[in-house]
Amino acid sequence: MQVEIILTVKEMNADDLTKKTVVVIDTLRATSTIVTALANGALGVEPMVEIIDAQQRGDELAAGTYLLCGEREGQKIRDFDLGNSPLDYLPEVVRQRQVILSTTNGTLAITRASVAKRVLIAALLNKTATMDEVIKSGDDLVLSCSGTKGAFSLEDFVTAGAMIADLKRRGITVTGDDRILAAYLLYDKYRHNLVEILRSSQNGQRLIELGRGADIQFCSREDVFFVVCRYADKIIRI
Amino acid sequence: MQVEIILTVKEMNADDLTKKTVVVIDTLRATSTIVTALANGALGVEPMVEIIDAQQRGDELAAGTYLLCGEREGQKIRDFDLGNSPLDYLPEVVRQRQVILSTTNGTLAITRASVAKRVLIAALLNKTATMDEVIKSGDDLVLSCSGTKGAFSLEDFVTAGAMIADLKRRGITVTGDDRILAAYLLYDKYRHNLVEILRSSQNGQRLIELGRGADIQFCSREDVFFVVCRYADKIIRI
Repeated sequence: MQVEIILTVKEMNADDLTKKTVVVIDTLRATSTIVTALANGALGVEPMVEIIDAQQRGDELAAGTYLLCGEREGQKIRDFDLGNSPLDYLPEVVRQRQVILSTTNGTLAITRASVAKRVLIAALLNKTATMDEVIKSGDDLVLSCSGTKGAFSLEDFVTAGAMIADLKRRGITVTGDDRILAAYLLYDKYRHNLVEILRSSQNGQRLIELGRGADIQFCSREDVFFVVCRYADKIIRI
Repeated sequence: MQVEIILTVKEMNADDLTKKTVVVIDTLRATSTIVTALANGALGVEPMVEIIDAQQRGDELAAGTYLLCGEREGQKIRDFDLGNSPLDYLPEVVRQRQVILSTTNGTLAITRASVAKRVLIAALLNKTATMDEVIKSGDDLVLSCSGTKGAFSLEDFVTAGAMIADLKRRGITVTGDDRILAAYLLYDKYRHNLVEILRSSQNGQRLIELGRGADIQFCSREDVFFVVCRYADKIIRI
């Protein structure tokens, strides 16, 4: 399988994506949150780049049918229902509700990927289910790391490595440039200590400062949810 | 110390370099070759992007005082004296001679870096001596991986990691984005098996196909030469 790793949103080239499956990764925390919300019963997640767009979309929906969610600088947006901590997306909170979500990096990466043939939203939490779907598609694969404010982020790269390891474990030959190998080797050596890797990253350090260490613990677990999260028509659904 | 890792030549932004020390890395093989040539007694190395420029520069020099060197697609350029294998740059061959060198990726990375305050040419072979010089400079540091035809190359990234590990070992606090951490973690886990990492990279695989496995072995050794290679006025000297 031909695999490419994109390190940040700005590396994403729309022309290259039209025949491919793109897996969008923002492990700390947007895609971990989306996967959790859907696995816990949310009807759908609508990613919104701008806060104002999220608010306007909320105004279109009946009260009680949706949650307005998101963060800026790691903190819940004022007057929104939930922030970007997957721990808040409990079944009793999200079930049968539409989640409208705006985050700093992840939602931009998702909307940018929308030109691709197929867009999947993934994190360590649903890595294997996502790779099942990728294999079934038969498409070339782009692992799109969201990064942090335009910079490379370690946790997304290691998550990409986890996905490559999963493909290799199934005996699939993965071809691509040395990023593939670097991500795989990093994951392979640290797979038993992912929480430490995630804690050491810049996003991890920031979350610890914000008192959100428990989020890191949660997001560092592999294959907690066997859900495939597909983005189409501006909504992510399972 | 503020450190930045550039993954390929095209990421290099000239404006950012003017107050910084740039260390150019092309472990397989241009910078390993340059370091070896100078450590073995070459007067200087003149990097040339184009073959024609190398030939013209040769024509300006007296016969017997210089060597015309370089590769395309890993093979020695036709009618040139030497290719890009460090093993060919023996003391008896290079001593007291000027080396005019044109390679696919490395020489471009070097000439692009020329706007920096200070440009050092380095590989695993002279990692520690280079870091001595960087520390002495007091400048912010840019580790510039040459990459391979515009793509990320694993061996350059691991070499950058070796340099970061060397700074950390001395108790220096290294600040920068998660690339720093990723390169360091990769190196740290594979430091006792660098030759295998280099062999597994795309450049490594290509060199093995070309029957140049011995070059990989040579280039994967750390601190063989305690030389600092400085690029100034279009010539690299120690």
